[in-house]
Amino acid sequence: MPGLLLVVSGPSGAGKGTVCNLLRAREPQIWYSISATTRPPRRGEVAGRDYLFVSAEEFEDLIARGAFLEWARVYGHYYGTPRAPVEAALQEGKDVLLEIDTQGALQVKNKYPAAILVFLLPPSLSELQARITRRGTDTEEAIRARLEAASAELAHIYAYDYAVMNDDVEEAVRKIQAIMVAEKCRVGKGG
Amino acid sequence: MPGLLLVVSGPSGAGKGTVCNLLRAREPQIWYSISATTRPPRRGEVAGRDYLFVSAEEFEDLIARGAFLEWARVYGHYYGTPRAPVEAALQEGKDVLLEIDTQGALQVKNKYPAAILVFLLPPSLSELQARITRRGTDTEEAIRARLEAASAELAHIYAYDYAVMNDDVEEAVRKIQAIMVAEKCRVGKGG
Repeated sequence: MPGLLLVVSGPSGAGKGTVCNLLRAREPQIWYSISATTRPPRRGEVAGRDYLFVSAEEFEDLIARGAFLEWARVYGHYYGTPRAPVEAALQEGKDVLLEIDTQGALQVKNKYPAAILVFLLPPSLSELQARITRRGTDTEEAIRARLEAASAELAHIYAYDYAVMNDDVEEAVRKIQAIMVAEKCRVGKGG
Repeated sequence: MPGLLLVVSGPSGAGKGTVCNLLRAREPQIWYSISATTRPPRRGEVAGRDYLFVSAEEFEDLIARGAFLEWARVYGHYYGTPRAPVEAALQEGKDVLLEIDTQGALQVKNKYPAAILVFLLPPSLSELQARITRRGTDTEEAIRARLEAASAELAHIYAYDYAVMNDDVEEAVRKIQAIMVAEKCRVGKGG
């Protein structure tokens, strides 16, 4: 039986990174997909652990070769999920976690209808603003662009299977773990 | 928001009673529907706690008045779920547990597509036979009839939302609890 393809997504600032890190700590058997990107590393990010950092030329070459499960250009940078390692892990029966934005999540659902899409909801727009500002890595203009995009992204929630409110990280992770258990009990799953 | 209507069903001998009793102990807020029946009480069964024991005349009168959410005649006896108390509990936002046979479960799903149907799987047909025989309340003929019915009932599994293998009661209950958590995160649930 192939593994679950679990997509944790949601607007920028919803807390995807924090939730996915705790989920990986709680469920260490999950195979975590490392995204490729052309954006420069943020402080503390490690190549090959947080992202595969590649040049725009390399990225476009990979697109042309159909090497991405999903990809997007966001705020001038490319982000993408390399396809081959995800498919290999699923075939080996491993559960796979993708932490991607809402554009990417919908591309994955189109290609793999069996993918389980979890939309992580920020507790409120004001909390979202606080989180994005607190990160301190963006210019004022970038923050405003992210906030506008986040509001627009909320409309994508209806294409998702599940919505999890991230007002408490522990609780959000417990809910995602329950979703994984439940999905493995689904009748006709994978068939 | 109305509560979840959780239907735990499966063939005779799958362990519905044991699983539901433990689930009720773990989730005491669940509202448990007491079925009405015309069969005589088994040893240890208490009227109003295990079943509402009624006469065939009373039962047929209730059918005529549309008072059942589902009902069936099995091995010569009527069984049914009184409708009004279930609807009242759901409207109050309570989660409701029905422990019913597969015929009844499909009737409930037809009337309430939002109902969550869990099919409890006996670990094997030989274990099923052992459980039915061990119960010691049935004649040899009744046991054979139950086993044949149980095999036929397995075909209904594809109309269910979830299948849970009952080879370990604790594990089965944990899975049903996870299903409840996940269903409350479903997008568009109740809407």
